[in-house]
Amino acid sequence: MESSSKPSSRKSLMLGNFVHSQTPDELKFFLDAAIAVDERGKIVGIDDDSADVHTAKKQLLCRLRWHEHDVDVYSCKRGQFFFPGFIDTHVHASQYPIVGVFGESTLIHWLQTYVFPCEERFSDEKVAQQVYTACVQRTLAHGTTTAAYYTTTHVAATNLLAKICFHLGQRAFIGRVCMDRDGDLSPECLRDPSSQEALSRTSKVIEFIDDLDPDYDLVSPILTPRFALSCTPKAMDGLSKMHCKLHLPIQTHISENPLEIKDVADMYPNAGSYAKVYDTYGLLTPKTILGHSVHLSEGEARLIRERKSKVSHCPCSNSALGSGEARVRWLWDRDIDVGLGTDMSGGYSPSILEAARQAVLVSRHLAMKAPDEETRKKVNLSVAQVLYLATRGGAKVVGLEDKVGGFEVGKDWDAQLVGLHVVGDHKEGRHKDHGNVDLFEWDLCNWKDIVAKWMYNGDDRNTKIVWVKGRQVHPRPC
Amino acid sequence: MESSSKPSSRKSLMLGNFVHSQTPDELKFFLDAAIAVDERGKIVGIDDDSADVHTAKKQLLCRLRWHEHDVDVYSCKRGQFFFPGFIDTHVHASQYPIVGVFGESTLIHWLQTYVFPCEERFSDEKVAQQVYTACVQRTLAHGTTTAAYYTTTHVAATNLLAKICFHLGQRAFIGRVCMDRDGDLSPECLRDPSSQEALSRTSKVIEFIDDLDPDYDLVSPILTPRFALSCTPKAMDGLSKMHCKLHLPIQTHISENPLEIKDVADMYPNAGSYAKVYDTYGLLTPKTILGHSVHLSEGEARLIRERKSKVSHCPCSNSALGSGEARVRWLWDRDIDVGLGTDMSGGYSPSILEAARQAVLVSRHLAMKAPDEETRKKVNLSVAQVLYLATRGGAKVVGLEDKVGGFEVGKDWDAQLVGLHVVGDHKEGRHKDHGNVDLFEWDLCNWKDIVAKWMYNGDDRNTKIVWVKGRQVHPRPC
Repeated sequence: MESSSKPSSRKSLMLGNFVHSQTPDELKFFLDAAIAVDERGKIVGIDDDSADVHTAKKQLLCRLRWHEHDVDVYSCKRGQFFFPGFIDTHVHASQYPIVGVFGESTLIHWLQTYVFPCEERFSDEKVAQQVYTACVQRTLAHGTTTAAYYTTTHVAATNLLAKICFHLGQRAFIGRVCMDRDGDLSPECLRDPSSQEALSRTSKVIEFIDDLDPDYDLVSPILTPRFALSCTPKAMDGLSKMHCKLHLPIQTHISENPLEIKDVADMYPNAGSYAKVYDTYGLLTPKTILGHSVHLSEGEARLIRERKSKVSHCPCSNSALGSGEARVRWLWDRDIDVGLGTDMSGGYSPSILEAARQAVLVSRHLAMKAPDEETRKKVNLSVAQVLYLATRGGAKVVGLEDKVGGFEVGKDWDAQLVGLHVVGDHKEGRHKDHGNVDLFEWDLCNWKDIVAKWMYNGDDRNTKIVWVKGRQVHPRPC
Repeated sequence: MESSSKPSSRKSLMLGNFVHSQTPDELKFFLDAAIAVDERGKIVGIDDDSADVHTAKKQLLCRLRWHEHDVDVYSCKRGQFFFPGFIDTHVHASQYPIVGVFGESTLIHWLQTYVFPCEERFSDEKVAQQVYTACVQRTLAHGTTTAAYYTTTHVAATNLLAKICFHLGQRAFIGRVCMDRDGDLSPECLRDPSSQEALSRTSKVIEFIDDLDPDYDLVSPILTPRFALSCTPKAMDGLSKMHCKLHLPIQTHISENPLEIKDVADMYPNAGSYAKVYDTYGLLTPKTILGHSVHLSEGEARLIRERKSKVSHCPCSNSALGSGEARVRWLWDRDIDVGLGTDMSGGYSPSILEAARQAVLVSRHLAMKAPDEETRKKVNLSVAQVLYLATRGGAKVVGLEDKVGGFEVGKDWDAQLVGLHVVGDHKEGRHKDHGNVDLFEWDLCNWKDIVAKWMYNGDDRNTKIVWVKGRQVHPRPC
């Protein structure tokens, strides 16, 4: 396999329509524009004020002193636009085989019945190779250019995931889960046999990634205490020390489900709250991603805000497991950064677009309980807001807001070309599968509606090309 | 176009795995079985107790005295199964162009801002031809073999939809909407100019369908007072009389959104309830489909039960428009039949599989509020239950329970072949798009999980072939 830390070796020019989040509330549309991407995969020029795309192209080439024959050109067709790559801030790669398999469970029962038996399989590297390859290809196909992955306790399998992401070209945080606490939530065959061993296994993964991608340019380790119920204080404390020494990010679960919260309170009777358990062991940091955060108290939100930790909102998972309805607007009002997570396989879908859609719907369910119209309107998330969560919001959560999430000079070209079907076009290829979004002639001037149609009905068929750092990672060039 | 009332002219033999709803709570799996379908599209034999599919086939052919060379054979591959066609009990064909376009609205505002301007376009038959063709092809592709359609007030456009369904082979109820009441909810350009004209236009559509498909074998008219807010008592009364004379089914909306309910109470101050408005004008009958029914009172449920009217649950719509969370279990407990509706474009998706998925999720949101574990478990809908709603439940709602919804001798072959991707298969065609569901080798013996994976992550790519009355309607035979 070709090394993917090496970006595309040619310059690129992207021509046509670009959409990204300007603010949490607003999408920006640059139409008939041009963006230039250099050999390192960085955006080095944008022309968004020309009268037409031909002029934009000419001016940008001229401004950069580039020659057309040195440049790969990607032009939007009708119904197409460039959009930033999606950022999945919480996803269990090892649970990919059981997406959609819940039985009638909620969190704890589901972990024991479905998740742990699935994770046990990863002692077999052949299984890991097959599942992780399928998972990374699948998420890339859905436009996920960055993913914060949980794996299992297995070092070899975890290293394999790092290698697969690196070679397939997905930006990834690789988190070997630490679970060293005796009990139902760390079955023996998965459990780290001691806190020391949990830390030493974690170090082995870090060393492997240090060799693979020394600058963590594409792939980085992430410290991953699974959650308070499956870790010992010693392991959490050790991971916190590693964080202080190595400045690595941290990810864990918090306040997902009422029963889990009660169990945490029983296990740590003196902590005061779930968030305080993590804070006690030094795990609430500006580089910490807290999955779920559904039922946080005001005090916990305040603490998380003080520590500048981030939240991964996982609506597909919270609805499917009946965990609860996370309050994005409430978190925003408390000045906490939020991104989206698929949380496969608590979430049933590998798609961040599906997570965005469910984020809208969960906000509607929250709004149904609003006491008045004003609150209802505030609680409801808009198309623009959930697409912000999926891109720029996610970038902040994983600490990459200077690199990805939008189209600005200096950022990396992590992007997708989205294509929607215009009814009547493609006469010759009408038996081809253009996906579920149909645009009619009269839609074409209304970009807000076009993006809404994509958000509500789009899928991986609409993600035509995906780039990470300027390199085309889907469909893979032959 | 070939007439589709004419069924497939050859006998067919379906071989392999069959799944259907045995009861509302239970799926039945017949593996290595065979089903014989005659030239009229009727199931004439089932062999589900042989040791293998080869024996099943041989025995069935022998029992029916059929010769193999007279028969078209369809065999399941790995990861494939036959499933009953979906029944969409509530769908606005005319709103297909605006699926996913909501802005920040709820029901009434959305009707005025998006729906009515869209429906106005159907005075142009060219628009109707384009939109209705796209809509029927799209719903067929998603496995919808029967649909209860709302159109607009336009007669010519409505007749066109009947013709398109008939020729493309979809079983359909065609409902020209009646809206003859002055006011914001019947804008002038759409309004029937008088109640008399509303009834006479309705008769014109009935006459057209009487000519097209005299026995309503595939396409039937359905009387469609849009909803209490846009109809006069005179029109409702007239439609009720037509129902009594012609025994045609009726469809309308009820109790979707709190504001709408308030408006109905204001408009009909003496009625006593929304359901009683319809009852007063003779519209609650055993052949009445009530869309939504989100906020029904105990008294309304009792009345609906007494009248034996049916309910179309539209979860995608109710969540997207923030209308509320319909209580399927509550309706079942009150002995009311329930089916699923996409309610495009209140619902954002043409897919009944998506409606099934959202029915699960909406039930989870309801369950979150349950006072105890027992209630929670009861409120939660299972995969089996929502697939029942999508097939057999829907068949009851549209009054076709003797014809479709499951695999029994005497029923019509309205079915879909579902195909899921087995990781590692299709080596040669690995660049083909197999959809989002990945089965692993170890999944293949667990049919409950296979169906769950499809329900949670499947889409139209997994619907490989669709038949109505034994005729292949998707992909269309060349």
